[in-house]
Amino acid sequence: MAEVKLLGLWYSPYNHRVEWALKIKGVEYEFIEENLQNKSPLLLESNPIHKKIPVLIHNGKSICESMVIVEYIDETFEGPPILPQDPHDRAIAHFWAKFFEEKGPAVGKSFLLKGEEQEKAKKEVCDMLKILDNEFKDKKFFVGDKFGFADIAANAAALWLGVLEEASGVVVVTSEKFPNFCRWRDEYINCSQNKEYLPPRDELLVHFNARFQAAASAPK
Amino acid sequence: MAEVKLLGLWYSPYNHRVEWALKIKGVEYEFIEENLQNKSPLLLESNPIHKKIPVLIHNGKSICESMVIVEYIDETFEGPPILPQDPHDRAIAHFWAKFFEEKGPAVGKSFLLKGEEQEKAKKEVCDMLKILDNEFKDKKFFVGDKFGFADIAANAAALWLGVLEEASGVVVVTSEKFPNFCRWRDEYINCSQNKEYLPPRDELLVHFNARFQAAASAPK
Repeated sequence: MAEVKLLGLWYSPYNHRVEWALKIKGVEYEFIEENLQNKSPLLLESNPIHKKIPVLIHNGKSICESMVIVEYIDETFEGPPILPQDPHDRAIAHFWAKFFEEKGPAVGKSFLLKGEEQEKAKKEVCDMLKILDNEFKDKKFFVGDKFGFADIAANAAALWLGVLEEASGVVVVTSEKFPNFCRWRDEYINCSQNKEYLPPRDELLVHFNARFQAAASAPK
Repeated sequence: MAEVKLLGLWYSPYNHRVEWALKIKGVEYEFIEENLQNKSPLLLESNPIHKKIPVLIHNGKSICESMVIVEYIDETFEGPPILPQDPHDRAIAHFWAKFFEEKGPAVGKSFLLKGEEQEKAKKEVCDMLKILDNEFKDKKFFVGDKFGFADIAANAAALWLGVLEEASGVVVVTSEKFPNFCRWRDEYINCSQNKEYLPPRDELLVHFNARFQAAASAPK
């Protein structure tokens, strides 16, 4: 059997994109939890340019960047397709994946940073939500009538944003402001198939609660 | 024949990535030059989210984001392949394309912005050059032994950076500091095949000279 290792962080949305793809394809893998304060020699060697998780190691070869890994998994392993087959649909999926690569990091920053950087990130999140709210005015998925590549890329907006809101006590998303986004998000989180792939919300909440508490009690 | 339109700006590296792919595949297309000060209704309608060039319109359907378009062209039209066939090689190509999507914009900013933003962009360019210099220590192309997707993504570092240096009079790249990058860049620009695909350097220089002169004589 192919040897697959994933270097990651269980609470990271980037990591979960990859886990999701591996689960869709039914690939068995060894998960190696990294410590960002003390990165492993394997991580530094496997991703020498960015030194970031996630990294997939397949038969000794490393692949970096979460959505690049998801596409690699889609092309390498048997199982249900993640990217659409039609070139125009694939382009729409790639377009949205790039959108979330660019806009997604603001989700974490808008809660975990402070001052000017935090305000800038909050504005980015609101701009992103406006776009998504408009996008889901008359559709349910990013591409056609199926959940796939772009939706996996959107996981931080769908799940982590709400968890960070609850842990920090700061509300950004309301159904009055972003009704279509909220409908999409609720279906995303509650659909039975996704539930199987997403990390447990309560465990994420415990993790981020602890982070906010630690930040609040840290010396100023 | 398929109807292909490209909404772009002749001097933009993003635009040229798409033109390069269209030329590799031998696709005939209508080029529609945009005016960023007065964007056409067609551009606003075809790329409602980013309102940016380039946009490819193929049989009435629009595709946005330069590298997404290059991949669409590769998958849609006959002709020499742009992305490698092997999934791991494809992943490396996607990795580098993402690298240039993230780091590339600093090239323009480091010459065209001012103050703190300019300094930040210059540092980003130097960080990028260090990585590329190390990457080309013992290889000639990003992936395997062929020019392709990642190299097309790298066009701003290969050509535009030098043009902007010459037009602005500010030197960032020296062969003492980045010998491997310079060797790669010189081969990239001078290889007879690429020459056919790249925009004329002297015309780019005239354009950017005029921009720097206009900026210098603008009221402060």
